Amino acid sequence: MIIVMSPLATKEQINNVEEKLVSLGFKTHPIYGEVKTVIGAIGDKRLLDTQLITNLPGVENIVPIMKPYKLASRELKQANTIIQIDDIRIGDDELIIMAGPCAVENEQVFYETAHKVKKAGAKILRGGAFKPRTSPYAFQGLEEEGLKMLHTARAETGLKIVTEVVDTRDVEVVAKYSDILQIGARNMQNFRLLREVGATNKPVLLKRGLSATIEEWLMAAEYIISAGNSNIILCERGIRTFETATRNTIDISAIPVVKELSHLPIIADPSHATGTWKYVNALSKAAIAAGADGLIIEVHNDPSKALCDGPQSLKPERFAQLVEELKAVALAVNRKI
Amino acid sequence: MIIVMSPLATKEQINNVEEKLVSLGFKTHPIYGEVKTVIGAIGDKRLLDTQLITNLPGVENIVPIMKPYKLASRELKQANTIIQIDDIRIGDDELIIMAGPCAVENEQVFYETAHKVKKAGAKILRGGAFKPRTSPYAFQGLEEEGLKMLHTARAETGLKIVTEVVDTRDVEVVAKYSDILQIGARNMQNFRLLREVGATNKPVLLKRGLSATIEEWLMAAEYIISAGNSNIILCERGIRTFETATRNTIDISAIPVVKELSHLPIIADPSHATGTWKYVNALSKAAIAAGADGLIIEVHNDPSKALCDGPQSLKPERFAQLVEELKAVALAVNRKI
Amino acid sequence: MIIVMSPLATKEQINNVEEKLVSLGFKTHPIYGEVKTVIGAIGDKRLLDTQLITNLPGVENIVPIMKPYKLASRELKQANTIIQIDDIRIGDDELIIMAGPCAVENEQVFYETAHKVKKAGAKILRGGAFKPRTSPYAFQGLEEEGLKMLHTARAETGLKIVTEVVDTRDVEVVAKYSDILQIGARNMQNFRLLREVGATNKPVLLKRGLSATIEEWLMAAEYIISAGNSNIILCERGIRTFETATRNTIDISAIPVVKELSHLPIIADPSHATGTWKYVNALSKAAIAAGADGLIIEVHNDPSKALCDGPQSLKPERFAQLVEELKAVALAVNRKI
Amino acid sequence: MIIVMSPLATKEQINNVEEKLVSLGFKTHPIYGEVKTVIGAIGDKRLLDTQLITNLPGVENIVPIMKPYKLASRELKQANTIIQIDDIRIGDDELIIMAGPCAVENEQVFYETAHKVKKAGAKILRGGAFKPRTSPYAFQGLEEEGLKMLHTARAETGLKIVTEVVDTRDVEVVAKYSDILQIGARNMQNFRLLREVGATNKPVLLKRGLSATIEEWLMAAEYIISAGNSNIILCERGIRTFETATRNTIDISAIPVVKELSHLPIIADPSHATGTWKYVNALSKAAIAAGADGLIIEVHNDPSKALCDGPQSLKPERFAQLVEELKAVALAVNRKI
Repeated sequence: MIIVMSPLATKEQINNVEEKLVSLGFKTHPIYGEVKTVIGAIGDKRLLDTQLITNLPGVENIVPIMKPYKLASRELKQANTIIQIDDIRIGDDELIIMAGPCAVENEQVFYETAHKVKKAGAKILRGGAFKPRTSPYAFQGLEEEGLKMLHTARAETGLKIVTEVVDTRDVEVVAKYSDILQIGARNMQNFRLLREVGATNKPVLLKRGLSATIEEWLMAAEYIISAGNSNIILCERGIRTFETATRNTIDISAIPVVKELSHLPIIADPSHATGTWKYVNALSKAAIAAGADGLIIEVHNDPSKALCDGPQSLKPERFAQLVEELKAVALAVNRKI
Repeated sequence: MIIVMSPLATKEQINNVEEKLVSLGFKTHPIYGEVKTVIGAIGDKRLLDTQLITNLPGVENIVPIMKPYKLASRELKQANTIIQIDDIRIGDDELIIMAGPCAVENEQVFYETAHKVKKAGAKILRGGAFKPRTSPYAFQGLEEEGLKMLHTARAETGLKIVTEVVDTRDVEVVAKYSDILQIGARNMQNFRLLREVGATNKPVLLKRGLSATIEEWLMAAEYIISAGNSNIILCERGIRTFETATRNTIDISAIPVVKELSHLPIIADPSHATGTWKYVNALSKAAIAAGADGLIIEVHNDPSKALCDGPQSLKPERFAQLVEELKAVALAVNRKI
Repeated sequence: MIIVMSPLATKEQINNVEEKLVSLGFKTHPIYGEVKTVIGAIGDKRLLDTQLITNLPGVENIVPIMKPYKLASRELKQANTIIQIDDIRIGDDELIIMAGPCAVENEQVFYETAHKVKKAGAKILRGGAFKPRTSPYAFQGLEEEGLKMLHTARAETGLKIVTEVVDTRDVEVVAKYSDILQIGARNMQNFRLLREVGATNKPVLLKRGLSATIEEWLMAAEYIISAGNSNIILCERGIRTFETATRNTIDISAIPVVKELSHLPIIADPSHATGTWKYVNALSKAAIAAGADGLIIEVHNDPSKALCDGPQSLKPERFAQLVEELKAVALAVNRKI
Repeated sequence: MIIVMSPLATKEQINNVEEKLVSLGFKTHPIYGEVKTVIGAIGDKRLLDTQLITNLPGVENIVPIMKPYKLASRELKQANTIIQIDDIRIGDDELIIMAGPCAVENEQVFYETAHKVKKAGAKILRGGAFKPRTSPYAFQGLEEEGLKMLHTARAETGLKIVTEVVDTRDVEVVAKYSDILQIGARNMQNFRLLREVGATNKPVLLKRGLSATIEEWLMAAEYIISAGNSNIILCERGIRTFETATRNTIDISAIPVVKELSHLPIIADPSHATGTWKYVNALSKAAIAAGADGLIIEVHNDPSKALCDGPQSLKPERFAQLVEELKAVALAVNRKI
């Protein structure tokens, strides 16, 4: 890292910073400019609390040279991580489609949807049993009853299950019924929950926070890996910007950026990114073309009866048509579905 | 609410929407424009899941006319809510200053800081025992040991205590040791945690999320109130924008906006808003001038040794000077400290 | 439009608003809710200054039902607009690639680059003669001398020319030398410049402003069309967000949204969107997959010698390779290059 | 500046960068870390195009150590700049209030408003003759006729005049009639216009762009100063964020930040910042408390008849009341009105 000293820093303050760095195990290289002095410090900043330096008198700021994450970085592990769930491999040449309704509501409708998305080509079934909702008056999910329906659908269709966990106290029960634990956007920096899913051996679908930088997102992954679980699938689901034409703004650039910085697989969620089914087709294709390893798409047998996020849900027929169209795009970028 | 129908909506679709609204207890008033039809619907939308309407064929979008929150709104309760903790009244004429270090670290340093902030005029002592940190490698707080130090400082100084809770499982223990439960910015939409603090009778300091709209923030308050606890103090602590000169951008307008929309008291956190002690003086004055009911300020006896957020901490002497200066600003807006 | 009256509005104020609306040629339909009254007003709001209503006593706000643009909207003109420049058709099945250096600098290098991008498949040559630069000390372009080089390259290669105009006083000279007038992101709301290019008969490449909503962007197009020139090509080039991993955040959703709202063609600029050549490949594919009508890409014979935006420029070989790869993506979405 | 080399950079590439830097007049100090090499370069980067370095093979990125502006910086000139217009001194102890309607519309109403704002304590009269409007169908200003009314109001009241210039071709005529040339938010990076006002000797009111960083804003000031005119008053008028409760989000922190970085005076525009007259009172006080050198406030004799921005205009009586209240706040921060 580089420590930039204030133009008013005294010689004594500069020496003091150097001494502190040396005492912390760094090698120092001061460069005396005409206005400011900067100190290069060689060593592993990641295991150090930079506050110890930032707060010293005369320090203007610190410029990190290395990334703050290590276990999630491609610098540490160059080969792509592939998450294997039985015969499904996420992060490999074959793209993985996850699909299903926002929330598990009605048993019959849910099973029908499950069968249809499977037939269309999905490998993993999504459906929320615990729903984080902006309004306390909105439907909050069927909780364990919903988990059981997911489990039944799994048995009936052979699809794997991904479902969200929103409370540290529920990790055990959700892990019992599902194949992938989803951490939603609003919980991306719920660090206790990250550690708790990090203590399981289940793959984790880690959604990007509404206003999380890519670096913060990878730091959230680092929390999970450092707790012992490196089976993480990142999911870009749109960030919050000033634009209101879509519910969020999908950050498609995040796909190649993450691929460069990290070895973890990344998928996209075009349904939450826009909030409107009309744009799901275009964004699904864009995400695949940009290099995503898969998609998670909301599909509902009858969106007009959905208790949650109906406007962004595709009908099964449209979804089946989309998967067909995606096959061509996947081939064009040397992938397959 | 107003239902805007698509320009292509058929007469049958319009009738269908009207029938659905009527069946849900609304009175309907269609207006037939040249291009689009809109349907006015009279009734309480707040207890209705609008998805049931949005998803009907031919519906373009829904324009809410009433606010989505009710218990937190000034429409319901016109008088200011005042939170009373023994002889301290938050939301009344007297402004309340909360101060202390980011995290409780060292016993001796903490008690010294506590005595100094009390002497300077603070009424409430802050200090984190559970710290949500971006990096898994950063200091995460002393947990229950830290809570005990807070409790001792309370006994020694007579200051009330505010401290953060980050996990539903910790609400009980934090409530045992502190006077005010803080919900941090990253947990503003941790709905389970909101419900859990809503089930206690402790006042809650609800920080605004990094990218939460004022409406979402008041909805988070609605969660707590609807769970039974209406002792909520809102805290503006800066939002995320494109500007990088400060860590966050304090949204000073939020103060008069919240005062108009809600009966709840609102304070400001100039330390987290900027991330730099240099700007704390100016922002504290601005917040008071804009009508805030108080401030929460980071003060550390020796910021260069702080394990957390040192760069934004004031030394006790500067803090004491600031409180003196704030008294004049408070008087200028007919308040007192 | 819908006029929402304040809960405190008097009967007289409501009548007053109705009378004003009627006097302005609207038909009114009041709906009396329990808390608020809303007034539906039928007529063409676009030709009215809504301030005349917003400012009336008792008015809380106005909800527009129709879009504020008309000439640029698909409601007015359902068929796609195709911009024809000799045998090039922008907005048709064939995708159009524009390529070339950020700025025209060195004659020889420029002509070489021009020949290479043509060979690779570009139809239009880009190159800046007037450069808007953040720093007054940075290279500002060769001005008319640069335009002449563009003109020569045009003659030598048969490529059409697109170049930026930054001052109302230069519109005439830029129109003389180029085929397409570019309005840069920073000038998207330079309304005088919009009107001036609207008074020419040259196609206009209208870049989206750094923080312009899609609606504001289409209003900028409306300025140009209402001044007489409907040959507009929209260009998504990234918006400003909190994310710093890329220079801007490309808003890929803008492509399907614009396609729905407007009849105008839209292309993408992956080079400015990210600021890094490494991500140009992925974003180019994403834009095509999402339905863009073309791309504008920075290509420089020797990026390390570019006086402007070198880091985002592709070398001609990489560009040629990219065009090959794009052909497959185009086919996958039933387009061609 | 610090050049960070890629982990994969070869020894030869590192040498090559060093040689290039030396040839450009820099002294170099390489620091060889375990993973990456960084090169410290001493010299004045501001007069150099950093692209020449960024594009060299093996370079990962450049970290600037010095600010990119020089003439606008407090490093160059430590004393506050005071702009003198006859007996008015902007940037001195006395705060300066500018007030008046958004646009000059009706002669009689305008003169009445002018007299009233003068009586209330304003020193400078605002009023737009050239209006940049989002819609081509909205009132665009009275142009030279409006300038003449401003001039008459100046003669009648003794107030100085500030008015916006939106086109390089109008700078001469606007300078003829007004005392201060306003550059609006949408033109903050209209570099030609900046240079043109820089070539006059009139003070310039430089509004911050909707999504301009403080650094870009100071670079815009640098354009004007480097063209010969250092009489610049900066004006914070709100930035664009995701929050929709106010039209823009006033960045109050920008006031102390600018005071630290630059010697130029800074005022605030609470009317445009919020778009609602209700919040103007609170924000005016906040800006003064935070250290602003003055305010520019919209006042209209009859806001309900304003052709432009009526909802954010104060009536003269409210404005007079506000100025009285501001006097107390000014005193509390050792300033006066």
